[in-house]
Amino acid sequence: MTQPYSIAVLPGDGIGPEVVGCALEVLDAAEARYGFRTERSEVAAGANRYLETGELFDAVDARLRDKDAILFGSMGDPRVAPGILERGFILEMRQRFQQAANVRPVRLYPGVPTPIAGLTPERCEMVIVRENTEGAYVGRGSTVHAGTPNAVAMQESLNTRAGIERVVDFSFRLALGRRRRLTLCHKTNILVAAGQLWQEVVEDLASLYPEVEVDYVHVDAMCFHLPLAPERFDVVVTDNLFGDIITDLGAVIQGGLGVATSANLNLDGSAPSMFEAIHGSAPDIAGKGWANPSGAVLSLALMLGHLGEGEAARAVEAATVEVLGGLPALAGAEMGATTAEVGTRIAELVRSGEA
Amino acid sequence: MTQPYSIAVLPGDGIGPEVVGCALEVLDAAEARYGFRTERSEVAAGANRYLETGELFDAVDARLRDKDAILFGSMGDPRVAPGILERGFILEMRQRFQQAANVRPVRLYPGVPTPIAGLTPERCEMVIVRENTEGAYVGRGSTVHAGTPNAVAMQESLNTRAGIERVVDFSFRLALGRRRRLTLCHKTNILVAAGQLWQEVVEDLASLYPEVEVDYVHVDAMCFHLPLAPERFDVVVTDNLFGDIITDLGAVIQGGLGVATSANLNLDGSAPSMFEAIHGSAPDIAGKGWANPSGAVLSLALMLGHLGEGEAARAVEAATVEVLGGLPALAGAEMGATTAEVGTRIAELVRSGEA
Ligand SMILES: CC(C)[C@H](C(=O)O)[C@@H](O)C(=O)O
Ligand SMILES: CC(C)[C@H](C(=O)O)[C@@H](O)C(=O)O
Repeated sequence: MTQPYSIAVLPGDGIGPEVVGCALEVLDAAEARYGFRTERSEVAAGANRYLETGELFDAVDARLRDKDAILFGSMGDPRVAPGILERGFILEMRQRFQQAANVRPVRLYPGVPTPIAGLTPERCEMVIVRENTEGAYVGRGSTVHAGTPNAVAMQESLNTRAGIERVVDFSFRLALGRRRRLTLCHKTNILVAAGQLWQEVVEDLASLYPEVEVDYVHVDAMCFHLPLAPERFDVVVTDNLFGDIITDLGAVIQGGLGVATSANLNLDGSAPSMFEAIHGSAPDIAGKGWANPSGAVLSLALMLGHLGEGEAARAVEAATVEVLGGLPALAGAEMGATTAEVGTRIAELVRSGEA
Repeated sequence: MTQPYSIAVLPGDGIGPEVVGCALEVLDAAEARYGFRTERSEVAAGANRYLETGELFDAVDARLRDKDAILFGSMGDPRVAPGILERGFILEMRQRFQQAANVRPVRLYPGVPTPIAGLTPERCEMVIVRENTEGAYVGRGSTVHAGTPNAVAMQESLNTRAGIERVVDFSFRLALGRRRRLTLCHKTNILVAAGQLWQEVVEDLASLYPEVEVDYVHVDAMCFHLPLAPERFDVVVTDNLFGDIITDLGAVIQGGLGVATSANLNLDGSAPSMFEAIHGSAPDIAGKGWANPSGAVLSLALMLGHLGEGEAARAVEAATVEVLGGLPALAGAEMGATTAEVGTRIAELVRSGEA
């Protein structure tokens, strides 16, 4: 029998443990059906751990680094000041594990209500690839004359050719296996230095992928095109900050945070990739059974695909889509089933091979 | 009789002259009805002038500077490289005339179709105030090792206390005359230096406006709240780059570029303010009579309000809203009337005092 995959599981805070619990039940089903195994180690991380011990990413780095993948719930708690967990854990992991590409499928699944009038699933099937380690997220900035009327704050966006190249190349390869269209999203008319470098890299790599059609859209215009003409996009590649913004708009279009999922991919095998739903810890509804576990289960599907278990990945996605389509609402008491029940339904479909 | 207001009219390129023509017809009607006068000087500017003479903002600065206001059409042409007119004219005007606040009402008018399912006019009535002279728009950036695999591009966002203060103070005063709620939109958990300065200014000024409730939303979360819960917002204040992005999302919500309008306000009387629809020059439909002039006419309403002609401003807005509500579509051959006809209808309502 083949070696088990080693998976670190970080349930995190709020609804994180509930939705990750569902993902693990679905993983059990997928293992039973598709004949692979995982060895899971649960790692406590997030607000509770920070509040108890002051520990952030540093404390768990060694326990994650040798794993094949990380399944992540969500982090955040009103008792922790904004920025602490984001910078001390999430961004730190992206940096240290060189998770260069934040991959967010924006797909409207059949039966899922979208707030965009008239939008149909056929028209909304794209992947947004966000550069995940540099740009404005390098956190370089400083203030002179702080606390005086003359204060000036500088904030820097740092963009390296190597950093851009790896996500752009990844995006071209992704597009090759899809509809062969790559759109760069930036604001090149204003952010000239950074914009030129991005454009240069896209143009240079385009010659290596002549089958892929290349397109460009300003980030502000993206606010129009994404909701009104999503069929225009196959793979969209963009910088860290613009990606942060437009992927949330993407999530709106596909029906909301409950369904959206993401992968933080290390592209050179030097450290594990991380998979998570894009919703937050939602402490207000934690423990109520109101959270939709679909985002977390779909992140499991991305993880399985990444590990090379393509068949299992497709089955988990298909089962999730089927169950999602039958829910009266996407979250809350109106969902028509509890978090755990939704998870069990998906798991059953996977186990029986019906999906 | 009182002095006429001196207005510079810049029709610009593409559909600019058509829609500005409508705004001027409505202005005639408003003058007739409300007993004020304007003295208008038309100034050629934009792509055609640039292509003929190479001239940008510099060439017209002196002819605009002494005016009471500027009515602006739109600029842009595929024959001019991206960035030239934006930086050489639009940003240059904002800078030199210290048009510190870019004000964009986001209002869903009755009868105007919005792409957001279930959104009603009562729920969508806000103003977004965008800092218009600094942030990432200062255009400071540089690249080391350009053209090599080691290229690094730095792009800087520069934020001054004075620059932030003037728009935040303006926003508080605006909120005082409205629903008394001010929301700061930023990404303080990542852009720490700039974010702290913005937050500090909002907190400091809040004590001067105790009647105004202050709120904060991250720019990524804004992509959720704007379309799904616009009723949460009264006045939103944000930085230049975030403002560029979220105001376009605002325009989507209110029914598209055809209806959206903006003011670029000089707040200290040192130079004129500028008023424009937010759509571009749309060269593909120029001359067809398909452009909806509402954005331009509504920018005239903003201009009249700014000049102190509040009654005329309200009448122009009301007339536009009435005509808009009766159009079968917002633009194109399906609009049910030509650009000029729409303008004439609005002008008639204003002239007759029926609006
Ligand atoms: C939590 C936060 C640091 C993060 C980001 O800004 O990248 C989040 O918004 C995301 O998109 O993953
Ligand atoms: C034309 C361009 C420079 C401009 C901007 O980026 O500010 C436009 O998008 C706007 O929002 O007014």
